[in-house]
Amino acid sequence: MKALVYHGPGHKEWEDVPDAHAVDPTDVVVQVDTTTICGTDLHILLGDVPAVTPGRVLGHEAVGTVVEVGSAVGKFAVGDRVVVPAITSCGTCRYCRVGQASHCQSVGGIGWVLGHLVDGTQAELVRVPFGDTSLHRVPPGLSDEEVIFLSDIFPTGYEMGVRNGAVSPGDSVVCIGAGPVGLAAMATAHLHGARRVVAVDLDPFRLERAVQDFGATHAVHAGAEGWQDEVRALCGGRGADVVMEAVGVPQTLEAAFDLVVPYGHVANIGVHGRPVTLPIDRLWIENITITMGLVDGVTAPMLLDLVAEGSLDIRSMGTHTFALDQMHEAYGVFGSAGQHDALKVVLRR
Amino acid sequence: MKALVYHGPGHKEWEDVPDAHAVDPTDVVVQVDTTTICGTDLHILLGDVPAVTPGRVLGHEAVGTVVEVGSAVGKFAVGDRVVVPAITSCGTCRYCRVGQASHCQSVGGIGWVLGHLVDGTQAELVRVPFGDTSLHRVPPGLSDEEVIFLSDIFPTGYEMGVRNGAVSPGDSVVCIGAGPVGLAAMATAHLHGARRVVAVDLDPFRLERAVQDFGATHAVHAGAEGWQDEVRALCGGRGADVVMEAVGVPQTLEAAFDLVVPYGHVANIGVHGRPVTLPIDRLWIENITITMGLVDGVTAPMLLDLVAEGSLDIRSMGTHTFALDQMHEAYGVFGSAGQHDALKVVLRR
Repeated sequence: MKALVYHGPGHKEWEDVPDAHAVDPTDVVVQVDTTTICGTDLHILLGDVPAVTPGRVLGHEAVGTVVEVGSAVGKFAVGDRVVVPAITSCGTCRYCRVGQASHCQSVGGIGWVLGHLVDGTQAELVRVPFGDTSLHRVPPGLSDEEVIFLSDIFPTGYEMGVRNGAVSPGDSVVCIGAGPVGLAAMATAHLHGARRVVAVDLDPFRLERAVQDFGATHAVHAGAEGWQDEVRALCGGRGADVVMEAVGVPQTLEAAFDLVVPYGHVANIGVHGRPVTLPIDRLWIENITITMGLVDGVTAPMLLDLVAEGSLDIRSMGTHTFALDQMHEAYGVFGSAGQHDALKVVLRR
Repeated sequence: MKALVYHGPGHKEWEDVPDAHAVDPTDVVVQVDTTTICGTDLHILLGDVPAVTPGRVLGHEAVGTVVEVGSAVGKFAVGDRVVVPAITSCGTCRYCRVGQASHCQSVGGIGWVLGHLVDGTQAELVRVPFGDTSLHRVPPGLSDEEVIFLSDIFPTGYEMGVRNGAVSPGDSVVCIGAGPVGLAAMATAHLHGARRVVAVDLDPFRLERAVQDFGATHAVHAGAEGWQDEVRALCGGRGADVVMEAVGVPQTLEAAFDLVVPYGHVANIGVHGRPVTLPIDRLWIENITITMGLVDGVTAPMLLDLVAEGSLDIRSMGTHTFALDQMHEAYGVFGSAGQHDALKVVLRR
């Protein structure tokens, strides 16, 4: 089969590798019909994720067709269409048994193994560990494009932003960062009755899309002087009940600490490479809650239900489509998304 | 009347001032029968709380007897014995109406006004604003010593440590800092079914008291090499489900970030004067929750019920007793508590 293989920082190749096949009884092998690229893949290519070693097939998002099942698999059969989630769940460890698959202890102590600790989805075939407790069946009648972003970014935005942020009816919600995950968070904030959803970003294209397609009620350009005051004014003059941070640099998380009201929530979604300064000398008295984490993916079935019934449409997240063997071109566009007005790229078999 | 008056950093005097009397219709004037000193009072005397201006009577904890009520007061009458809480509540602002009196908006935007923005309880008489929605009646048969620490430290330890930390049955709980508020947090962790309560401090006396009188199951001296490993070993090798920080310096809060398990809680109780480093580069993936805040005092009635029925005994917190006019001596002992094996001092009329 062909797969995108990581060969150390800065190097990747779409090349021939041995076909994926079931190794453990709980494995399911999926033919990748649709996949995509994540910002995390770009971090890997920069050498930021040392657990990813040369020879690893990248990718942790896919929709596909089951082509082989291990002997212990009972829920899926050859021919089933499935969503492959970024986080696989053994279903038996102390974390998985309470729905905290992000910390699945069975492979390396983390639920994100695909394209990280085992070979991933940017390939013609992928071996998915713990198939019964990890895969999601695609509801009948839905296209790959309607569900591909439930592998990762929609559960991430919803669970780490909206649920962790405890968005409640009537809340003013600010999302700093209107990249794919931030947009997914904004698009699901209305599920919790947010009154205002203010998108903050430096990219006018993303701000426009936030308002047009992803549920933001207002957009604020973070390059404008006094943008924080503009955000506060949009939040009734006080500040935000919930600030979701979806960038992953110190300045944006520190801005979140500044924009939240007493008793509000700062929900970190971003992947950070540096520590931040927590102004506890000012905030200890402000009764705020700060959350962070890796997605569990437990809300993917609910989000699939919403897509199936037509109340959540995520297709506009995919701005560019490629064939699988155009992997390098797809990385090129996604890696310079700002120049291409790209959100997510879609790669089809 | 006599009162302890703040005269700028380093200066205080027990001196004659005009008698407290009702000014607003909702005021209740209380004769102070018992009061105490808080670590915050020491901060004020160091000049760390600039909102406290010279001429202010200090103190925000008392048990006393109602001697005058404003025309709008309906719930209390002259002669009633009451607990004066650190946090007064107007009962009408958007925060007070949802039980978040810490952010009462009616006087200076904060619920802590006594001994801060208005004259306080280290006096023979104190004017308590918003009496009906702030004071607590002392249950019959209880002495002042049995309830004085419900003014502040027990609600603070319980609300900011145990409740914010979401202590749950079976949890391993670590409390860094075994001063009065830390001890109050440890003493109430069993209400939520904590399996282990590990006290961490530098003072052997406080560690001993934590275990003997305040519900700690284990004590770890933070001066010992490898104390963090000892704490982890006591928590089943993993780390703590909940770490409560009750010191207020960067090292201890940063230690809390290091000791918490994935999906655990860090509940800040300490009053901080400096920012801390939040290692979000390591923690973003750990699904932890960080909380902080000023007490609301909403649990004081429940804690009073526990004291009244004999299931919470807080008397051992008061280690030294003085007469009101020995205020300077009492500050001397409390200000060098380590030398005197002091926890809280009690001042009696």
